[in-house]
Amino acid sequence: MTDPVSTADQQQPASVTEPEASRRLLAAAIEAFGERGYHATTTREIAERAGMSPAGVYVHFQSKEDVLFRVMQLGHASAFAAVEEALAGDALPEIKVRRFVEAFTSWHARNHRAARVQQYELRALSRERYDEIRHVRGRFERLLREQLRDGIASGAFTITTVDPAALAILSLGIDVARWYRPGVDPAPDELGRGYADLVLRMLGNLEGATSLA
Amino acid sequence: MTDPVSTADQQQPASVTEPEASRRLLAAAIEAFGERGYHATTTREIAERAGMSPAGVYVHFQSKEDVLFRVMQLGHASAFAAVEEALAGDALPEIKVRRFVEAFTSWHARNHRAARVQQYELRALSRERYDEIRHVRGRFERLLREQLRDGIASGAFTITTVDPAALAILSLGIDVARWYRPGVDPAPDELGRGYADLVLRMLGNLEGATSLA
Repeated sequence: MTDPVSTADQQQPASVTEPEASRRLLAAAIEAFGERGYHATTTREIAERAGMSPAGVYVHFQSKEDVLFRVMQLGHASAFAAVEEALAGDALPEIKVRRFVEAFTSWHARNHRAARVQQYELRALSRERYDEIRHVRGRFERLLREQLRDGIASGAFTITTVDPAALAILSLGIDVARWYRPGVDPAPDELGRGYADLVLRMLGNLEGATSLA
Repeated sequence: MTDPVSTADQQQPASVTEPEASRRLLAAAIEAFGERGYHATTTREIAERAGMSPAGVYVHFQSKEDVLFRVMQLGHASAFAAVEEALAGDALPEIKVRRFVEAFTSWHARNHRAARVQQYELRALSRERYDEIRHVRGRFERLLREQLRDGIASGAFTITTVDPAALAILSLGIDVARWYRPGVDPAPDELGRGYADLVLRMLGNLEGATSLA
């Protein structure tokens, strides 16, 4: 679960895909967009936060929207990689749903600043770019829905339809980005486990809801 | 469940507490803050959307932050009134939790534009005003936690601790404001019932989870 965007949330290893100056700009953009919103942030402010000249931004990005798009691309790719890794290999649907919730929830806690920009500034993207990001978002949803359907078919889950459970599960994880305060709220992995317990109860799989059942 | 802010979401009856011009400004502000964010919106833009002169804004509000604060005050008061009304009278904790979830969720769907501003622009308030709004938010939480504790004590709920269920329940309702699309997603009341079913399952009260159990 490594994040290719070096966010302000934490120290992370250098990514092989983004050069150092570009990563610094992305981290600065996440901070600025998160504090004042995309539309209120200028490329000059992003450059200043990154300790660069405004012209320096244009070496790496064509526009402010370009910066936002890169934040979105890297963030979504990172979250998806975390979920995909958690779901690798064969396992029962109730185990896979637990892993999905743990990975998805803890990713949003761990990367709450980047996640906030990623979740709340989608409409600032151009139509074409929005569609590209929406495509990635659809992959999360399909992955989750598949596991829910499998668990309904196997009898592991007692819900009769995938909706609104699928929506509720994604929503719970995403909203973590809004309220999460590191050092005050439970650690990301602990929160992930607690939410996975609640979700398995919600789905009617009490054996899987270990810590609370 | 009437909303004293006449939001762009729907036609609502005139409030007795806000004069017509002021309500028009608040509705315009909700639209503008929702589309571009609080910091990127000028009082001039709010005035233009409301069909007024920039000076007209200052007849009703001292500053842009004053407008935001009023949006927050009225929105939180409206949501709290909806929840309070739903919980009025004696009822078992599992019934009260169902009513809480239905009222809280459907309020966020019905008033999704106002709710989005209310949930995502809190940090734009001055410390003092933020504290006032936080105080109202604390009342929701206390109301819910009280019902959860009562249901644990009565044996209606099989969770052993109020957290993280309380957090998850509030989070589910609040996040509706982010994704809700009227006419595409389930109607507010239907969504409220579906979420209440899921929450009661989550709490281990399967008898109360009528439509899905």
